[in-house]
Amino acid sequence: MFEFTITSKNNRARTGIFTTPHGDLLTPVFAPVGTQATVKTLTPEHLKDINATLVLSNTYHLYLRPGDELVRDMGGLHHFMQWPCPMLTDSGGFQVFSLSQTRKIDDDGVTFKSHIDGSTHRFTPEKSIAIQENLGADIIMAFDECSDPNDHAYTKLAMDRTHRWAERSIKAKTRDDQALFGIIQGGVQADLRAESANFISSLDTPGIAIGGLSVGETKDEMHSMLDVMQPLLPEDKPRYLMGVGTPEDLINGVLHGIDIFDCVLPTRLARHHSAFASDGRLNLMNASFARDEHPIDESCDCYTCRTFARAYLRHLIVAKELLAGTLISIHNLRALIRLMESIRGYIADGSFESRVPELLKQWHGNAGRSSKIVVADEG
Amino acid sequence: MFEFTITSKNNRARTGIFTTPHGDLLTPVFAPVGTQATVKTLTPEHLKDINATLVLSNTYHLYLRPGDELVRDMGGLHHFMQWPCPMLTDSGGFQVFSLSQTRKIDDDGVTFKSHIDGSTHRFTPEKSIAIQENLGADIIMAFDECSDPNDHAYTKLAMDRTHRWAERSIKAKTRDDQALFGIIQGGVQADLRAESANFISSLDTPGIAIGGLSVGETKDEMHSMLDVMQPLLPEDKPRYLMGVGTPEDLINGVLHGIDIFDCVLPTRLARHHSAFASDGRLNLMNASFARDEHPIDESCDCYTCRTFARAYLRHLIVAKELLAGTLISIHNLRALIRLMESIRGYIADGSFESRVPELLKQWHGNAGRSSKIVVADEG
Repeated sequence: MFEFTITSKNNRARTGIFTTPHGDLLTPVFAPVGTQATVKTLTPEHLKDINATLVLSNTYHLYLRPGDELVRDMGGLHHFMQWPCPMLTDSGGFQVFSLSQTRKIDDDGVTFKSHIDGSTHRFTPEKSIAIQENLGADIIMAFDECSDPNDHAYTKLAMDRTHRWAERSIKAKTRDDQALFGIIQGGVQADLRAESANFISSLDTPGIAIGGLSVGETKDEMHSMLDVMQPLLPEDKPRYLMGVGTPEDLINGVLHGIDIFDCVLPTRLARHHSAFASDGRLNLMNASFARDEHPIDESCDCYTCRTFARAYLRHLIVAKELLAGTLISIHNLRALIRLMESIRGYIADGSFESRVPELLKQWHGNAGRSSKIVVADEG
Repeated sequence: MFEFTITSKNNRARTGIFTTPHGDLLTPVFAPVGTQATVKTLTPEHLKDINATLVLSNTYHLYLRPGDELVRDMGGLHHFMQWPCPMLTDSGGFQVFSLSQTRKIDDDGVTFKSHIDGSTHRFTPEKSIAIQENLGADIIMAFDECSDPNDHAYTKLAMDRTHRWAERSIKAKTRDDQALFGIIQGGVQADLRAESANFISSLDTPGIAIGGLSVGETKDEMHSMLDVMQPLLPEDKPRYLMGVGTPEDLINGVLHGIDIFDCVLPTRLARHHSAFASDGRLNLMNASFARDEHPIDESCDCYTCRTFARAYLRHLIVAKELLAGTLISIHNLRALIRLMESIRGYIADGSFESRVPELLKQWHGNAGRSSKIVVADEG
């Protein structure tokens, strides 16, 4: 069911097709984040209109609210939120460690308090898989621990635990219509990243996730870790770099052989009036846009750019109208999805590697951190 | 340019076609309110999808922000907000009297302080028309004073001022592609309403507005005022009952010969999780909807009802997701627009009057005040 076919290569970068029960994914792909079973402020129609294909949702959030059993009883996540295309859920591990109140980790799992009401809960690999089976996404994740990347001793301990949890996750899985990915950890320690890449690659899973990056390390550290892992990963499995990223990170990720990305950045920026544009990231609240009759980006084909002037978007922002967030989210997501569409074309025609400097320059003004900073209602 | 053709009648109720530079309006019509050049949380595509035809925007708000000259320079209101169909602006009078901080009224106009920044401004009939000409709606309003409806002496004074201001508004008007309506005032005083209806009807305008109702009077008072005015109004001009209303008010208004309505109620209710439904108004936050797989209203054809279960809408509300407001706004507006479509059909086939008891019963659970309570960011 989950075949991955590489359709073209350009050194380490590749295009592929990953088949899922809800359709084929063309990779490399950027997935909008729908934390609480909704990509914030957008309807599924908006997502189809920007050619989104894969949407991520968060296990931790949906477990707490509305509850995974409720989602299952309502027909599963696809039906609940009316997204007919492929979906991915994370394991809940990252949110438990970064978002929940007091938590206590042991080798069996983690006990934590809800950020919503302080109630106590426990996740184990088996529980995470059970929740993700209730949610019913096409791609699901093994339960993992994401530790402080700079503490070698603890990172080793957390990595070993993540490996044992990956094995338990595989064992716990009962549905055959979900692709379970193991997650590579190891912080920014080259030896641990290599060890983890080897271990996770050895497991019988249809795909590989890379966790624990874009959590505060430098760009150089991220690239260096990708360099360490890349040669150790099986060619024939899709690789998912979790929580990444900026346009720059996407370009570099593809260059390092990554196939799947997700990030809250485009929608979070949109709600803070910031828009991707080919002449640099724009803060649309700026007074200089008050009478600007141009779209956010002349070259963009999204509904927002086809329809509205910057002057109107600025007015909506200044007047505190929620439509601003909707319209800029449409644009920011479309910008990254369009970037991935271009990249797929460049890989197919063999020009990707030679275009990277030009692409990085074009997107330079939109650089910055992937900002995987966790806030409770993110998406 | 502004012809009004009555196409069918059922006692006092009538259907008609009002031609405007942005297309023909089929009446009776309900206009969604886009206070700040946006119907809150909805795109123009959403509005087209629910078959909205006329959209209202507020002169007071747009004058203050982003400024009517800016809107003019950006191509006018239709182009600025990308609404290609007919638009209506009010005179700003109601908001000045109800929303702005300290105000000082004299026979020439009113000086007031902005609710946004306390800055001082002055509206006169000439200024209101100049602003509305900059905004460029198809239907515009004469400047008026809406007084406390129960104080006869003051209501008389305000009504007389409104009449003089109507004459000045007509004189000030320079554009021939806008239909200026005079506004009948007179509170809940039958003698004043009759006097005002006669005076405003005597003016050479393509339509008549009725102001100062739905501002705190009882339903009986509203109906009684409509009864007083109706026989005095020219048959051949469209009649606009400002700021009304609830489904019940729309049905009764049509019964009293009204052709145009607007109200913030459907969108305001939506943002407070309340949805019109044929079995009564629903508070979708209610726990009883947590696992409800039905749409808001089985009989509704809107995107929300065609697509989402109540359980999902409740989840969005509980999770504080803004998409809830968007989806419920789509439904609530469509419910009233669909009601007007039905009513037009019933008038055309002669069954409207006989169906009124059934219609009122059907919508009884959705009754209540039109709640023309003014809040700063309404819409």
